[in-house]
Amino acid sequence: MTLDDGTLGEPTAGRWMATEIDEQPAVLAGLLARAPEIGAVGAELARRAPRFVLLAARGTSDHAALYAKYLVETRLGLPAGLASPSSTTLYGGRPALTDVLYLAVSQSGRSDDLIGALTVARECGATTVAVTNAPTSPLAGAAEFTIDIGAGVERAVAATKSYTAELLALYLLLGAVAGIDPGLAAPLPDRAAAVLARHNGSAALTAAAGRYRFADRLITTGRGFGYPTAREAGLKLMETSYLSAQAFSTADLLHGPMAMVDRGVGVLAVVSADAGGRAVRPVVDGLRAAGADVLTVGPEPGTPEAGADNRADSLVVDTAGLPAELAPVLEILPLQRLAWRLALDRGLDPDAPRGLAKETRTP
Amino acid sequence: MTLDDGTLGEPTAGRWMATEIDEQPAVLAGLLARAPEIGAVGAELARRAPRFVLLAARGTSDHAALYAKYLVETRLGLPAGLASPSSTTLYGGRPALTDVLYLAVSQSGRSDDLIGALTVARECGATTVAVTNAPTSPLAGAAEFTIDIGAGVERAVAATKSYTAELLALYLLLGAVAGIDPGLAAPLPDRAAAVLARHNGSAALTAAAGRYRFADRLITTGRGFGYPTAREAGLKLMETSYLSAQAFSTADLLHGPMAMVDRGVGVLAVVSADAGGRAVRPVVDGLRAAGADVLTVGPEPGTPEAGADNRADSLVVDTAGLPAELAPVLEILPLQRLAWRLALDRGLDPDAPRGLAKETRTP
Repeated sequence: MTLDDGTLGEPTAGRWMATEIDEQPAVLAGLLARAPEIGAVGAELARRAPRFVLLAARGTSDHAALYAKYLVETRLGLPAGLASPSSTTLYGGRPALTDVLYLAVSQSGRSDDLIGALTVARECGATTVAVTNAPTSPLAGAAEFTIDIGAGVERAVAATKSYTAELLALYLLLGAVAGIDPGLAAPLPDRAAAVLARHNGSAALTAAAGRYRFADRLITTGRGFGYPTAREAGLKLMETSYLSAQAFSTADLLHGPMAMVDRGVGVLAVVSADAGGRAVRPVVDGLRAAGADVLTVGPEPGTPEAGADNRADSLVVDTAGLPAELAPVLEILPLQRLAWRLALDRGLDPDAPRGLAKETRTP
Repeated sequence: MTLDDGTLGEPTAGRWMATEIDEQPAVLAGLLARAPEIGAVGAELARRAPRFVLLAARGTSDHAALYAKYLVETRLGLPAGLASPSSTTLYGGRPALTDVLYLAVSQSGRSDDLIGALTVARECGATTVAVTNAPTSPLAGAAEFTIDIGAGVERAVAATKSYTAELLALYLLLGAVAGIDPGLAAPLPDRAAAVLARHNGSAALTAAAGRYRFADRLITTGRGFGYPTAREAGLKLMETSYLSAQAFSTADLLHGPMAMVDRGVGVLAVVSADAGGRAVRPVVDGLRAAGADVLTVGPEPGTPEAGADNRADSLVVDTAGLPAELAPVLEILPLQRLAWRLALDRGLDPDAPRGLAKETRTP
């Protein structure tokens, strides 16, 4: 595959990532059109009456898995954990997994340790599901059920549309297990398009990219449903701009890493319009009072959800009227644009970060 | 409490942290003397026949919880997860926790969200255990069972002896559930003393501190039982020296963060003498071949466990003859010394990092 494949005109740095960011409303709409099919799998999972949920993933997909963990804990009322594939693939563990729902999330479906860990999980009695963009991949072949996230070919190494597609696919699947009306997600394509339009070369986005033009280090933070967004934003910035963007749950930030925060290290905080966001707000206020540079992602200034956070340096994401668990699909969007813009400003090609291959084989 | 409390002579930066690092062999010996008492709790937990284990912790204790997760998965053969306290404390989740063993790990036993999450877990049917240095703390009061890690008062803000005490207490407790002979841990105090003596102002340690004297960023990595050590080492370096020390499972390092690694960002890799370490070694070799600066922590050069890693820039930790799951108690020791030494070299006081209180209250 060459950068100039003749379909999009001149080769341009970051062209694929930009295109894939903009494809997200259509990808989300495609998934919603398949909600009945995904819901049927969810209904079958509900019949199995799982008592525990394990999630296995790497990289960007691990942040979608973390999102799903919060969904399981808060909406299914079940305990959940992120699986450590090495326990089975390296240490030979054979856990007792009857009554366990085991979800592996992978864009490519080709990560060897995920395939190995899911295979062992299935042998040990778990109900296994592959959530993947590659429904004919080895991971899908190894799983009892497959959910195709249908994001289409993803060419930029920094994943964008596959991330939001994984979030929505997991919402539709686990929502069906919990009996949640999938219609609640119907506004997402239009809302995503609105967020992307708002931050297409917006003054706020340009200012944010300018602010980090020479930054080496950044801390990203969030809590609850905002935490996966903070982690995914950190990874995008690392992948495309080589920033040391370290993500912390806002609760963990108070235990140690706070020592790192000073006027030289910026903080990017996801302040959602929910209980998680309300727990982040006093920490943001404290950081600002101490002189730290804080950029927030959150609701429209002046709305009750935004509280006192009405600074011009917020990246606004309007989530009003949506359930809290759908906000992550929208809140990552300006941060994807920010990672793309910052890489270009730094003279880098966000489509082809150094040291990375699109399919990562874990030894 | 003042720095000069009259008991240790002149106030000296890092005195408490140095003292507490050196207390570890005695703390480990004290815990081993209480192995029967801890084993009795483990036997009672085994009678409950838990089917799933949840671990809740913050900061340093979260790394001990991650260690316990690997123990549960590999030696108890049960699925395990790290609990997200916010799911219950912020979002009001009431998960079904019958058959669940819920372990909260906290030095101080005073973190409000851990107390809240454990209380909800107990109400929801879980068997609850507090693993803490404060057996009369609110967390211990809220739990059905308490394991006192017996580390004594910890005055340095950067936790050291409470971390290794948590590791050994969790090993003794979960080992008793699994029927493992606690005598396997008997050599630990002497072995810990030997590791500490070896790295007390050793040339290797001095060289490592010198190497990072002006570093702003560092990546720490490990896999399996080596991964909690990589995370705890990263946190120590952040807390005491304000380095951006970002920890990645070696498997995740290949998914994105690798883009960050270049000749300007050092890598500190835990290469244990087990299956986890063997999976790290080819990644270390690849990083070195690409010109990255890699410092390893691992077995004696020339031994079969060390493989080709016989460079002078290794911090050697002799774990020969010990079960793989006890190596983390020893492998963190030179890294604690490194964090202490580096802070002093930078003119900082590792006893009193800025922005941190010893007991962290999570809002």
